Amino acid sequence: MAGNTFGKAFRVTTWGESHGPAVGAVIDGCPPGIPLSTDDIKRDMDRRRPGKGAGESPRKEPDKVEILSGTFEGKTTGTPLALVIYNKDAESKAYTHLQNIFRPGHGDITYLKKYGLRDHRGGGRASARETAARVAAGAVARQILGLENIIVSAYTIALGGIETAKRQFSEILANRLYCPDNEAAARMEERIAEVRRHGDSLGGIVEIRATGSLVGLGEPVFDKLDAALAQALMSIGAVKGVEIGAGFAAAGMLGSENNDIITPEGFETNNAGGILAGIASGDDIIARVAVKPIPSINKEQKTVDLENKPTTIKIGGRHDISAIPRIIPVCEAMVCLTLADHLLRQRAIAI
Amino acid sequence: MAGNTFGKAFRVTTWGESHGPAVGAVIDGCPPGIPLSTDDIKRDMDRRRPGKGAGESPRKEPDKVEILSGTFEGKTTGTPLALVIYNKDAESKAYTHLQNIFRPGHGDITYLKKYGLRDHRGGGRASARETAARVAAGAVARQILGLENIIVSAYTIALGGIETAKRQFSEILANRLYCPDNEAAARMEERIAEVRRHGDSLGGIVEIRATGSLVGLGEPVFDKLDAALAQALMSIGAVKGVEIGAGFAAAGMLGSENNDIITPEGFETNNAGGILAGIASGDDIIARVAVKPIPSINKEQKTVDLENKPTTIKIGGRHDISAIPRIIPVCEAMVCLTLADHLLRQRAIAI
Amino acid sequence: MAGNTFGKAFRVTTWGESHGPAVGAVIDGCPPGIPLSTDDIKRDMDRRRPGKGAGESPRKEPDKVEILSGTFEGKTTGTPLALVIYNKDAESKAYTHLQNIFRPGHGDITYLKKYGLRDHRGGGRASARETAARVAAGAVARQILGLENIIVSAYTIALGGIETAKRQFSEILANRLYCPDNEAAARMEERIAEVRRHGDSLGGIVEIRATGSLVGLGEPVFDKLDAALAQALMSIGAVKGVEIGAGFAAAGMLGSENNDIITPEGFETNNAGGILAGIASGDDIIARVAVKPIPSINKEQKTVDLENKPTTIKIGGRHDISAIPRIIPVCEAMVCLTLADHLLRQRAIAI
Amino acid sequence: MAGNTFGKAFRVTTWGESHGPAVGAVIDGCPPGIPLSTDDIKRDMDRRRPGKGAGESPRKEPDKVEILSGTFEGKTTGTPLALVIYNKDAESKAYTHLQNIFRPGHGDITYLKKYGLRDHRGGGRASARETAARVAAGAVARQILGLENIIVSAYTIALGGIETAKRQFSEILANRLYCPDNEAAARMEERIAEVRRHGDSLGGIVEIRATGSLVGLGEPVFDKLDAALAQALMSIGAVKGVEIGAGFAAAGMLGSENNDIITPEGFETNNAGGILAGIASGDDIIARVAVKPIPSINKEQKTVDLENKPTTIKIGGRHDISAIPRIIPVCEAMVCLTLADHLLRQRAIAI
Repeated sequence: MAGNTFGKAFRVTTWGESHGPAVGAVIDGCPPGIPLSTDDIKRDMDRRRPGKGAGESPRKEPDKVEILSGTFEGKTTGTPLALVIYNKDAESKAYTHLQNIFRPGHGDITYLKKYGLRDHRGGGRASARETAARVAAGAVARQILGLENIIVSAYTIALGGIETAKRQFSEILANRLYCPDNEAAARMEERIAEVRRHGDSLGGIVEIRATGSLVGLGEPVFDKLDAALAQALMSIGAVKGVEIGAGFAAAGMLGSENNDIITPEGFETNNAGGILAGIASGDDIIARVAVKPIPSINKEQKTVDLENKPTTIKIGGRHDISAIPRIIPVCEAMVCLTLADHLLRQRAIAI
Repeated sequence: MAGNTFGKAFRVTTWGESHGPAVGAVIDGCPPGIPLSTDDIKRDMDRRRPGKGAGESPRKEPDKVEILSGTFEGKTTGTPLALVIYNKDAESKAYTHLQNIFRPGHGDITYLKKYGLRDHRGGGRASARETAARVAAGAVARQILGLENIIVSAYTIALGGIETAKRQFSEILANRLYCPDNEAAARMEERIAEVRRHGDSLGGIVEIRATGSLVGLGEPVFDKLDAALAQALMSIGAVKGVEIGAGFAAAGMLGSENNDIITPEGFETNNAGGILAGIASGDDIIARVAVKPIPSINKEQKTVDLENKPTTIKIGGRHDISAIPRIIPVCEAMVCLTLADHLLRQRAIAI
Repeated sequence: MAGNTFGKAFRVTTWGESHGPAVGAVIDGCPPGIPLSTDDIKRDMDRRRPGKGAGESPRKEPDKVEILSGTFEGKTTGTPLALVIYNKDAESKAYTHLQNIFRPGHGDITYLKKYGLRDHRGGGRASARETAARVAAGAVARQILGLENIIVSAYTIALGGIETAKRQFSEILANRLYCPDNEAAARMEERIAEVRRHGDSLGGIVEIRATGSLVGLGEPVFDKLDAALAQALMSIGAVKGVEIGAGFAAAGMLGSENNDIITPEGFETNNAGGILAGIASGDDIIARVAVKPIPSINKEQKTVDLENKPTTIKIGGRHDISAIPRIIPVCEAMVCLTLADHLLRQRAIAI
Repeated sequence: MAGNTFGKAFRVTTWGESHGPAVGAVIDGCPPGIPLSTDDIKRDMDRRRPGKGAGESPRKEPDKVEILSGTFEGKTTGTPLALVIYNKDAESKAYTHLQNIFRPGHGDITYLKKYGLRDHRGGGRASARETAARVAAGAVARQILGLENIIVSAYTIALGGIETAKRQFSEILANRLYCPDNEAAARMEERIAEVRRHGDSLGGIVEIRATGSLVGLGEPVFDKLDAALAQALMSIGAVKGVEIGAGFAAAGMLGSENNDIITPEGFETNNAGGILAGIASGDDIIARVAVKPIPSINKEQKTVDLENKPTTIKIGGRHDISAIPRIIPVCEAMVCLTLADHLLRQRAIAI
């Protein structure tokens, strides 16, 4: 059983390979009457588009999403939404020399072992290209969340070992890295430039925050909201860790420190990250993800070929130095998809 | 839509409240012909049983699992397995004084907000008691994994801020905390004793390792093996973070450091934690979870009652100081359930 | 992937074999606050209990359902409901002589071929005993439907070739066969007595009708309400055909005859059986099922044994002559489960 | 929760409206290595294409299916297959006069009641146009079935009250109605011509037969093979009844007549339609569906408008007289999808 569908009430199935004709998503379960146009999707698509990567100069042409079904006169109809993004400039020839070799840190070797064959062009389905469909679908989910005043935003809190000293949300849009600390962002850019010169790459940490009418969302005991978010976020290619609220820091705290005291005005602290026993408490939901460095680097690396013989590889081309900031809208999209799904699921369990 | 079922091919549905008549699990999708008796389940149940908690003296009576269907002459038949564990000694009266109050760090408040009513006795469905059903089901999954020589083991690598200095697996069974470092375990026990005196509680970190014929498991792009493990582990009540392989440390590494070099003999390192592009590479799978301190503490805490009026609470009784070590078999169970599910799922996708 | 779960929002998983310790059902997705006691389940259980079969004298002891989780103070809590019915008087020895032989018309041969082994005692999972769990779960669904004034009732319209001449619903409870035509019921009883003397068995047709606030239920294009009902009803062991509204008769009609004219007061006719384009129109939902004759007959039949050698079999014991009337509450249960599921599903799709 | 996905292991999600830009299907769970090209899909598409309807002269331009993902070098890769069929000549203006009126026998009224709004152009999602996506997906399923020598074929056994006197399969392709009785087919054509003159329409009965390595397919107790087929076939718009093997005729038979005697050479008869206890016995699977007359007729009919005021409607245009024969490949497609799904599901349950 394959796993290209996410969600149970708001269900998204993505399809498409990096160098095939197109990528896309089908959404089943979107309620009728939601205002939706391609413009509503464009903003998120623009943030993840090629050329917005760490150190890149933006290319002209953004990804264009077409809505092939499920809307009528500017509103969703309750029938499936089909979103398609045709691939352009897919230079599949550029990958010919990689067809007999496994790139370290990539899924080349595992895809071949799992399926017995693979579309080697640009990573095929394992390419970050697949996230374009997630972002498009996430934008639809965001339209639903808007009706409940739920806002989801993600931002960079660490990159290349440099951490933000503050969370000044007004500064997020003031720098290219979506970092709530302009000063830290400037140092991160310096680090990116330095690492680029060495042909290497960088990881970082992204925090995602959701606010609004969240209380009650989450379905114990296996689809708890934190469990669902963990799956959603860990399913992003570059993510190697997910934590909620205090997260790994909670492991070193005393119970009296970690418990969020309840007052008539609400919780005094938010170590829980807005989720208690898998159900949203109404406080802000806070999650963080560890983003690994981009595995494609412009340095010579040892590896093996299809016949398991040792060889080396050096990956040139216009690769990003870090998945940050392009991963930011992808993280938001996955959280939007999760929350929209749980919003609709909660309606089915309520009396 | 509720969420009490885990898995798609090997499907487990758990049921039962802390102070109801019983807890249990139904497993649908277990292949026929798997040897299974209550003895196969008993070992794991014994490790999580009440009285094995941090600082507790073991009680006499272990949880007894009954198999009510799905086996015949010592083997599974391919029909649903019903596992039941009757609750004993459930002192529901002990919770009467808590029925109008929200315990900090517990799901009391979110359950009420979600469902409009709740079974307040001992946490009801949100109680750790529910994990008994997970462990029972996990033991069945372990029988299947055994056929593929897949072994899953979990162990403590941090507790109360004390970290293990080594992973000497032979020492895991040599101390009560399933810690691969006897010396660290001794200091953890001291820390437990100290914190007990103050009526407080402790968190820690558990690492889970799976070895064996894992290659190819995992279903991109949403049910990647790491995504499925993240959901599985984060669905355990006390868990606030999950990481795979290098995890959050990867965020601070260079690409050239984090990439696992491939050689004819295999991977040189295992920063990936055995999973590339969401598919098991064949290397050991390594996951870590952050376990928060037990929220029930023997200290006075501020909170509110059902009418949102301020009050205080001090939770007495025989509570564990830490979810470790009783959470160890629960973590193993969730990983066993995940791997068994993906083992069967892989059969349906293979040509 | 096994298939012992029915429904997507109101999800029922049944388990248990004819001659194992118990049969049961777990319901996940029942909304909280629904009044529920064992008495609410008893009425339906009594109608399908052993001894109510065609030609049988009722035995004393009814099936007793225990609710092991999911209720608190007489109401559902939103957590999973576990229903258990312990098996009594299961004379498994009576089946020892059948363990090496395939009964014609039974699943003995297909269960063995599918699973490689089987629990031969009394049909194991393929026994009509399994429907006890369906009826228990259906009674819970009925409680939910009651809140929407939805009433589901089934009745016999043909048995042993004798058809009802009318649908006088007041007569349904006036005869043992739940037949809306007392005169036809009397002739059916004569036919049963006659066939019993010859050691043979009879089939028939059951009609199921649902009334109330049904409009809008059904999820195109694969989970249309008629499609869901067809699956639900065909999953009952003895059912070999399902039709909605005019059903097979529609195949011989003109469009101008079959179309239900719409007037300001509603539809003039109900050839659609209350379902248009897979969605309930608000008119009564009408379905009919073909019930095959009981395959266990007290006549010698040719068959083969486990080694594919020819042999004969004559099945004695206290078998019913027809699945009617005991199948009546089972049909109702499956329709109740379908409607409750779609009622909750509709909430998740509505804006 | 919407219902536009069919299957659990071989999962098809269809999308698209009659007069939107396109219709399509995404298939998740297709094993890798299956040979697949658009030519493999074309044959089935051609049989259902506009202009092949009862009484129509074929138009030139067939529906063209594009494969946008999931294949590489002529084989499936194990990743999702996206199939798109762009709509041509969709004369949405032709439906403007219908936007305020409910066509009898159509889903106009129920779609509006369910969703609160609807795409009225040509029936939107409820149009038979949607079945183009089913047929395309079914052709992929057929490729998988071919590997197991499973062949699925459907044919007309009744139309407009005229029944076939024989099942001479060699004659199926010798007439336009896919009827295994050329003489009956000729009379059916006469009946079609006659009814056309009166502006009316006709229903009929289609039989579907599957042969090959079917034994063991089917997942008790809710996804039994007959239950799955019933859902699959009843989900086709025009279908109002489904029966397996002897079907409704079994209701009037004695047990001794209906039981299929087992001999060392196999079953003597096939009243079971190849399915015992929900599992394929290995004998041919036989299902029949009742097809209602096309509701769009060229006769004046009474109905109401959006404000529930009485009015009349007469539907002109190039409508088919019967859903037969264009429904034939749709029936085959749904059976192919069901069998492919169960073929893959069986692999996950086998030891």
